[in-house]
Amino acid sequence: MLRSESGSSLCGNTLHANLERLWGTLVTSSAIGAIAGGGLSRLALSDADKAMRDKFVAWCTKAGYTVRFDQVGNIFARRAGTDPSLPCVLVGSHLDTQIVGGRYDGILGVLAGLEVLRSLCDRDIATRRGIELVCWTNEEGVRFQPPMMGSGVFSGTLDPAHIRSLEDSDGSIFAGELERIGYDGPDSVTPGEFDSYFELHIEQGPLLHAEGIDVGIVSGGYTSYGMEVTFHGENAHSGPTPMRQRKDAMVAAAALISAINALGWDYEPEGRTTCASLHVSPNKYGIIADHASLILDMRHPDAASANAMRTEARRLIAQAASSSNVDVEVTREWTFGSVTFNRDLMALVETCAEEIGASTTPMLSAAGHDAYNVASVLPSALIFTPCKDGITHNRNEHIEPQWTQPGVDALLNAVYRRAQSVDSLVAHPTPVETPNPLSKHNDADGS
Amino acid sequence: MLRSESGSSLCGNTLHANLERLWGTLVTSSAIGAIAGGGLSRLALSDADKAMRDKFVAWCTKAGYTVRFDQVGNIFARRAGTDPSLPCVLVGSHLDTQIVGGRYDGILGVLAGLEVLRSLCDRDIATRRGIELVCWTNEEGVRFQPPMMGSGVFSGTLDPAHIRSLEDSDGSIFAGELERIGYDGPDSVTPGEFDSYFELHIEQGPLLHAEGIDVGIVSGGYTSYGMEVTFHGENAHSGPTPMRQRKDAMVAAAALISAINALGWDYEPEGRTTCASLHVSPNKYGIIADHASLILDMRHPDAASANAMRTEARRLIAQAASSSNVDVEVTREWTFGSVTFNRDLMALVETCAEEIGASTTPMLSAAGHDAYNVASVLPSALIFTPCKDGITHNRNEHIEPQWTQPGVDALLNAVYRRAQSVDSLVAHPTPVETPNPLSKHNDADGS
Repeated sequence: MLRSESGSSLCGNTLHANLERLWGTLVTSSAIGAIAGGGLSRLALSDADKAMRDKFVAWCTKAGYTVRFDQVGNIFARRAGTDPSLPCVLVGSHLDTQIVGGRYDGILGVLAGLEVLRSLCDRDIATRRGIELVCWTNEEGVRFQPPMMGSGVFSGTLDPAHIRSLEDSDGSIFAGELERIGYDGPDSVTPGEFDSYFELHIEQGPLLHAEGIDVGIVSGGYTSYGMEVTFHGENAHSGPTPMRQRKDAMVAAAALISAINALGWDYEPEGRTTCASLHVSPNKYGIIADHASLILDMRHPDAASANAMRTEARRLIAQAASSSNVDVEVTREWTFGSVTFNRDLMALVETCAEEIGASTTPMLSAAGHDAYNVASVLPSALIFTPCKDGITHNRNEHIEPQWTQPGVDALLNAVYRRAQSVDSLVAHPTPVETPNPLSKHNDADGS
Repeated sequence: MLRSESGSSLCGNTLHANLERLWGTLVTSSAIGAIAGGGLSRLALSDADKAMRDKFVAWCTKAGYTVRFDQVGNIFARRAGTDPSLPCVLVGSHLDTQIVGGRYDGILGVLAGLEVLRSLCDRDIATRRGIELVCWTNEEGVRFQPPMMGSGVFSGTLDPAHIRSLEDSDGSIFAGELERIGYDGPDSVTPGEFDSYFELHIEQGPLLHAEGIDVGIVSGGYTSYGMEVTFHGENAHSGPTPMRQRKDAMVAAAALISAINALGWDYEPEGRTTCASLHVSPNKYGIIADHASLILDMRHPDAASANAMRTEARRLIAQAASSSNVDVEVTREWTFGSVTFNRDLMALVETCAEEIGASTTPMLSAAGHDAYNVASVLPSALIFTPCKDGITHNRNEHIEPQWTQPGVDALLNAVYRRAQSVDSLVAHPTPVETPNPLSKHNDADGS
């Protein structure tokens, strides 16, 4: 084995990333927006987000990569290839976090991408295709909705003008905040510049850690449905108003939350349901609430089951309203997760993982990721690495360096090989219909 | 009938208030803190509260009443009596409202008290005892908790130093806000100065309006229990986290809200339960809530039933926590409403009402009132007047001038007679045990 001074190494045809260096960047990131008790709070376009972006851009600039920002603040950093006529390979994830988020969600993917470029630079390995790092803006969707925002604009599913006009709960406008932190970019970056997209992410679920598997190769997503529901009741004094005269919007919301939770249990272990973003008004002692809104989230790996959950949810919404004598409306509805990752890229990642002796499994993602959006416009691969007990969006989100090495090395080698290939990828527009598509594609050549 | 130029009149021994003048003051009040669609939003110590207080004080000062403010901003305005050695009669209510409140709740009581003084002045009627108007600070308890705050300090159940240190949800301190609006008063006003207390208030329930009864004479209150409950769950990503691994504080809160609502139905029509002030965090899309707190309110006219509801609520709290796999604590608990109004004053009000031909009924109050607090330190009477369909704490709170005339006239004559009496009232410390105590006291002499 050859090992460079900087610690990344080449073994036969197989590259290895410098785990210590990668971990050093994670340690740096973990101090930016750190919160008591561990974890990070680094909301999109916040001061902490700016500080992390500045650090990331400084790393990229110092290494000589060409940095661009687009109109929603996505950051692109290109290591040029030897043949500028070939579309580049795109690698990345996001650096923002939940309001009480972990240190690795998204961040590991961006910094692993940086480590891919650095590992190639260590060995002066030139690639035919350029390789471009991307940090997507506001994957979490906490401060500005929807989530997966930057990748949504890149892939054309979100209108950038609309996104720029969004307001957070304090009344700050997206475009103003973007300018304030210095990332309102002039650059137009389109999918046409790219050959393929790779994203590495912690699993955010318990499977890999529990089963001791090194690398998850994601074939698709849980089909996810979201609905924003608003109940309209009537204000009244909570003391003198008899139960039968009430139109209590909070009671209706509670009935729906309980019913949607029970729906999740009906479909468990695969199915899951969550209510969030509950807003009640006036929500004051002494007065019955005339308004309650909340967001429902329903997910299932099987699209038909997810659709059945959605149908049942609509019945439960009507039932919660009628049993509480209030009116209701579904004010917004969305879906994501019916995504198919590229079969050839999945096979490539599997081959690279096997060559370094890593165990792999095909799997579905229950969480939404930027790769969902990008997969609609580019052949894409999503690689999962283990996280402890699947705990995430939590201060206690935890990974160990050695858990990530196989996934990062698989990413490095897959990106490298793709960047050396002059062949175009064949799109596979037909959704893979089973949750275990890799088993049907053992003949994939790994190119 | 003699009628003065200003419209108040004297018929035999019976005084009549000037309804047009009273209504004029209500119209003035209805413009201060007015909200779209009718109603008022005039939170305690807000700019609107200041504007209304200033108007009220201007009316009192112009009439020559002696105005004082105490250290929690209660306003006292005295029309002197002829015998300063006799304790005064106190009359009033509150001028603050809910965040979406009505135009009459509390306000009618203060302005009816003002009309009592004005009606006596119209006829140059001197009284032996002075009569003192009071506007209690923050009856509603919306911005600063608990409700019935000013009367609570006056009656010694609340510590003024603690009250002055309270913080609202924006971080503003009570004492600072009181000073800001100019009502941080130097005056110490104690129950020892007073002979008795009269409060007129809209019923805030449907009985009087539905039955066509002019005046409700309140014998006591619904026994009310309050609890502040906090659930502690665990943050997790809503997508990948299986139902059985969740500790969702929002689901626990919803289970409790539903269960407490069902408890109210178990005890209806007399019993009633309400949940309010629900706060969930992080309460963001994509993350399971680790924290939820809410306030439970349980009321019943029968003290034993109210107590049984409270016991059952404690069981339901534990059940909601265990069924949702979260921890729970009851962080605060309180009770009010086990109050007895003075039998002699009740009889006096009844006599005065009968003399003007008004129909009356003894009744319990389901809502809390400042009179609850004052009744613990002074012989007190609480007089209800009809409100449409019992709708209150609502933009649509509605009364008609002629509905209030009998109650206001009963108040005027009862206060006048009490202010002329040199006898001391006998306290009736033993709670009246039936919801219809007046029927047991038909021999009351009305003095």
